[in-house]
Amino acid sequence: MPFINYNTLPHLKLRDGIHGGLYHSDQLTFGHLVLEEGALLPEHHHVNEQWTHVIEGSLEFTLDGETQVMTPGISVYIPANTPHSAKALTLCKLIDAFLPVREDFKLLEPWVGQ
Amino acid sequence: MPFINYNTLPHLKLRDGIHGGLYHSDQLTFGHLVLEEGALLPEHHHVNEQWTHVIEGSLEFTLDGETQVMTPGISVYIPANTPHSAKALTLCKLIDAFLPVREDFKLLEPWVGQ
Repeated sequence: MPFINYNTLPHLKLRDGIHGGLYHSDQLTFGHLVLEEGALLPEHHHVNEQWTHVIEGSLEFTLDGETQVMTPGISVYIPANTPHSAKALTLCKLIDAFLPVREDFKLLEPWVGQ
Repeated sequence: MPFINYNTLPHLKLRDGIHGGLYHSDQLTFGHLVLEEGALLPEHHHVNEQWTHVIEGSLEFTLDGETQVMTPGISVYIPANTPHSAKALTLCKLIDAFLPVREDFKLLEPWVGQ
């Protein structure tokens, strides 16, 4: 499946109000995530390097104590093991990339949407 | 520079009609590329795994002999050393991720826009 249509890929549930389509290569997890307005991602960290890019919406993002409101065209690079958290100020659509692969995401349950 | 604003990052020239902002972490190159309508990327390959995601526009993409027209929401995963080529059917805006880092991209010249 070299071409991946994230418009039709079934969504998985990451947290309340956070869901998306995920695809894993050998080296990287590449996802298209939706955060409902008000969705919260509490502070956490992981061994995976992460890149988050805002496609739509307004995302308040805190990385290692620095907070910015991210809007379309803005990315954040999250080094491995660095604490980060986020709050969706509006409905947000994001591109997320993780390396190495998020093995824990392979265990996620399907998202049961509205 | 954990937060990267690709709306204001100076563009580099990749080829005629192809330019964009690029940022390199230790492990990955993450870029926001613009392909002018009609821009051509001849068939090539590289050791880097690549992910390309269409944000805007319509991109005819050929990967290892399979061609698809990619539109917003569609990604392509290009394994290492796999031949690929592309043609921008319209102005295209893409997210590209490469791992490991594209060291050759660190030598690109600034894009001198219209």
